[in-house]
Order: sequence, then C-alpha cells, then structure tokens
Amino acid sequence: MEAISKEVLSGNRRALARAISVVENGGEEASQLVRSLFEYTGRAHIIGVTGSPGVGKSTLVDALITECRKEDLKVAVLAVDPSSPFTGGAILGDRIRMQGHTLDKSVFIRSMANRGHQGGVALATYDAIRMLEASGYEVIIIETVGVGQSELAIAQTADTTVLVLMPGSGDDIQAIKSGIMEIGDIFVVNKGDLPGANKSASEITASLELASSKAEKPWHPPVIVSIAETGQGIGELWQAIKKHKLHLSEAGLLSKRRMDRIQAELSEIVADIARRNLKKSLSTNNEVKEVLDDIATRKVDPHTAARQLIGNMFQTIQY
Amino acid sequence: MEAISKEVLSGNRRALARAISVVENGGEEASQLVRSLFEYTGRAHIIGVTGSPGVGKSTLVDALITECRKEDLKVAVLAVDPSSPFTGGAILGDRIRMQGHTLDKSVFIRSMANRGHQGGVALATYDAIRMLEASGYEVIIIETVGVGQSELAIAQTADTTVLVLMPGSGDDIQAIKSGIMEIGDIFVVNKGDLPGANKSASEITASLELASSKAEKPWHPPVIVSIAETGQGIGELWQAIKKHKLHLSEAGLLSKRRMDRIQAELSEIVADIARRNLKKSLSTNNEVKEVLDDIATRKVDPHTAARQLIGNMFQTIQY
Repeated sequence: MEAISKEVLSGNRRALARAISVVENGGEEASQLVRSLFEYTGRAHIIGVTGSPGVGKSTLVDALITECRKEDLKVAVLAVDPSSPFTGGAILGDRIRMQGHTLDKSVFIRSMANRGHQGGVALATYDAIRMLEASGYEVIIIETVGVGQSELAIAQTADTTVLVLMPGSGDDIQAIKSGIMEIGDIFVVNKGDLPGANKSASEITASLELASSKAEKPWHPPVIVSIAETGQGIGELWQAIKKHKLHLSEAGLLSKRRMDRIQAELSEIVADIARRNLKKSLSTNNEVKEVLDDIATRKVDPHTAARQLIGNMFQTIQY
Repeated sequence: MEAISKEVLSGNRRALARAISVVENGGEEASQLVRSLFEYTGRAHIIGVTGSPGVGKSTLVDALITECRKEDLKVAVLAVDPSSPFTGGAILGDRIRMQGHTLDKSVFIRSMANRGHQGGVALATYDAIRMLEASGYEVIIIETVGVGQSELAIAQTADTTVLVLMPGSGDDIQAIKSGIMEIGDIFVVNKGDLPGANKSASEITASLELASSKAEKPWHPPVIVSIAETGQGIGELWQAIKKHKLHLSEAGLLSKRRMDRIQAELSEIVADIARRNLKKSLSTNNEVKEVLDDIATRKVDPHTAARQLIGNMFQTIQY
C-alpha cells in the first residue's frame, strides 16, 4: 500500500486508478490506504451533479470540465451508478462523450458502480474523493445517474450540488416540490432549446422562493437555463458554482457541511462494520446459525434476535 | 401496544393503519409490536411489483387486486417510495386509481415513504408486512416506484417479484441485461397496445434464455404482454404468480428465500442499531464529539475513528 500511496501523491494516473479500485473493494486494504493519505485530503471543491436519466448530465459535466480547464484547474469526474447492484457494471457508455478530454492529463474520469449492500457505493465515494484529492485534483465532479435515495446520499458528499432538469419534466418538478429541492444549491434547466424551458425555470424559481422564505441562512439557489450541447449557459453555471463555494466559506458553512458529512460517513462505516461482522458470524458460528432457525420457526422475532446477536458479536468483533 | 396487537389480530383496519405507522417510526415501540405479533406472521404470499415510473404499475396492481377478489382472497398493497427521503410524502396520487376498491373491506392500501436513513424503509417494509399478515391478509403486494438500489432491496422482501416494463423502453431492457433480470420471477410488458410490444417481449425472452442456461434450479420466468387498463393479460399474470408460488413450495425454495430474507433483515437491524447508537453518542458524549474534530483537523481518518468508537459504543450499547 505504501508504494501506491506515494505514487498517488506524485500524481501517477495508473496508481490513482488502482487506489480507487482498492477503496471500492473496501476492507482492511482500503482503510490502510485512506489512513496513509488522509492528511493530504480535504482540499478540493466537490461538485455533485444529479438529475433524472436523459436530462443531459454527462454533456453538461463535459462542458464543465472545459470551464475548469480554461482556468487550468485539475479536474476529476466520478460517475456513480448506485442502481447497478448486481453486475458491478457502470454507465461507461455515457463516458464516451467525454472523450474530448481523454488526452488531457489534468482530467481524470472514472465510473463507479455499487458492489454489495446499501451504502456501499456512498462509502466508496467518500474514499475515492480522497484518493483524487491526494493526487492533486482541485475540482471533483460527482455525477449520479438518477434522483433516488442512494443517489441523494451520494449527492450529499458534495460541497455544491447541481440539480439538472429538462423542460417540461413535470415529474422532476414534482420531485423538487416534494423535497429534492432541499439538496440543490444550483438548478439547471438543460436542453433549453426545447419548448417550455423558460416556463420550467419560472416554476422552479417560484417553488424556491416559497421555500427560501423559511430558510435561516439565505443562499438563493440560482436557476440557469443551459444548452450543454452548445455550451450555452455553462459559463454562467460555472460562475454560480464558484460563487456558491465563496458563499460557503464566507458564511462558515463549508466546515459545517463537512462536519455533517463526517458524521454521516462515520455512521455508515460503523453500520458497515456491524453488518460485516454479522455476516461473518452467520456463516461460521453455529450458535448464530441457530438463531436463524429460531426466527424461521417463529420462536424469536428478528428484532429480539438482533439484540441478542449484537451482544455476542461485539465481544469478538473484528474490524 | 397490547391493545393494538389484539385489534390488529381481529382485523380492525384502523388499528392496522396505526400499527403500520408505529413500525414505520421504528424504535422500541415497533420492536414490541413485532414481538407480540410475530407468531401470527409468515403466512401471506408476498408479491413484489417493480419497474420504472410510467410503465403502469399502479394500474396493473389495481387489476391484480380484482383477480384476488375473484378468489375471495384478502389483499393488501404497500406502495413504497424510497426516493422521498425528505418530506415523508408518498406517491398518494397514484393511489387514487385504486379507488374502485376503497369500499371493499377485504382490500387494504397503504403508502409508505422513507423516514431517515438508507435501509430505513426496507426495514419498515418487513415489519409492515408482518402487521398485514397478523391482520389476516393472504396476498400482500409490494409496489415500488422505480428500479433503483433501494427499490430492489424492497423488491427482495417478496416471494414472487414481478418486473413491469413497457414496449420500447430501451433503458429498461438494458437494465435487465445488466442484472436486474436476476430479481424478476415474472416479466410483464405492459401497455401492450403500443408499438413494439411483441419485439420487447421477444428481446426479454431471449435475454432470459441466455441467462437460464447457467441457472441451477430452473424456473423459466414467463414474459407476459398485458394492457392493465383493459385487464388484458392480467388473468394470465395472476396464474403465473400462483404457479410461481407452487414452484417455490415444491422445489423447497420458499423456505430458502425466506431464510435469505431473514439474514438480510437481521443484518440491516444490526446495522441500524449500530447507526442509532453512534448518532446518540455523537450528541451526548464529549469524547465522541472530540473524535469528529480530530477528523475535521485530519488528526485521524474516519476508518480508524470508527473502529475506536465502536469499541467504546458497545460497552454502553442501548437497543
């Protein structure tokens, strides 16, 4: 692991790719790697880009990369697909659109898919961000495939969350009204050349105004109409992203957000350790296996059984 | 809790609604309720209905209710929306379509939304199913809003999983190819009057044949073309569901599936207990709060910190 750490720090792309695979797989190797690189992390601006499939997120991310490169910023993209729990295959197809940047050594693009249980990909995302930071990436864009719960958990690893919609997507606007709004720092109505773009933007703005009257520290999320294909509106989006970062720093919110994030991550790591230990003891410990039978025969309910097991488990816990 | 238990057993609908709210909220009250009713559970046929938004799942579920009622079966529907993590508001709009059954006292329909963390709604679903079983429902349909990871976790609470698609939804067929297939016991191409219905059905069948050559105990998932609006194909679907249940029993798979489910549930309960305890100690224990600062200042990484915390935590664990 030490050799990889050094290479990651030196900016070696192959070592970085390997390091991300290690943290994706989790376990002791991943923890070691994070431990050895942790002091070099926490310096990038993390931007989450989320929204329903088909709204043009990948094209928009592609255009954002161009903006970063104009300012000579090293930029990385993690495309995370939490809805592929079985095969581990990710949304590589979309990545092809970003090929304009493949020869640029200051751009790093990587797909991540879920391996295993709920929360797994969110945990891996935290650590993959760390690998990228240690390797000197100044802007890290986290792109998710949808707006489900797992995607939101991932969006919350970001400092600045961009919610992308398209004109007339009534479902999305419904979703915004029903709460997804709360996670968006910036709203983009992409495919702005389609009919109804301005109407959608106005609807979102109206919903946001209604909500922000209740908010404590007012950041008024801007609503930007873009055509990512042609680059229209992307400059404005990039300015809004930078303005949001400044706002976070000035209002002292950046450290608060990061503290919340640490808390959420710790909580998932602890849950993960508990889950792994149970799984292990279910396959190795006969007493524990008997508990399963007792549940199946309705002698004991799962809640009571879990409380018994957890007592046993943590006398012999393994990390 | 004891009063509610009795009323739930007697089939009182109001008590049932209240009991489901209790298990949704989790905690000690929920555990007590599950404990007191656990011996009366495990008897219903649990049918999962999943698929992307817009394919007509609610209409299809509505038609399935009619099939159940023809056989005088008591049927309940849990409509679960794991993608509304913030407001707790669920997909009630869709429920209106099921109003044809609102006066039928043998039909119970309930929406559940996520409250809190990942895994929360899956855990609550297990327990809500138990409340319905204790109350005498013989068929329980779990309808989810999408095909994301959380939805799949919920689909896996079912004995028989029906995956609903519509013609020409290339994304869905892609999803099937990339693994969601593995959870479908029965496939439905709904909106069968749209162009390409038979082509979609053939594509799915071809994919399934390719996969089933590798399977151990062959259940050949049928692919049914339906028009839920008119009821076409629903009789066939209902026969397929019953046939699948018979197959599970005869092949000894029903108990295996349920055993896997118990294991998954136990694992999530244990993770949940760990998560709750951490959260509690983060707000009450000064030593634990200091750990957060140490992470923020990069003195210790989250993985190492989690291992320290879990040691402390389980000396004073509270369930």
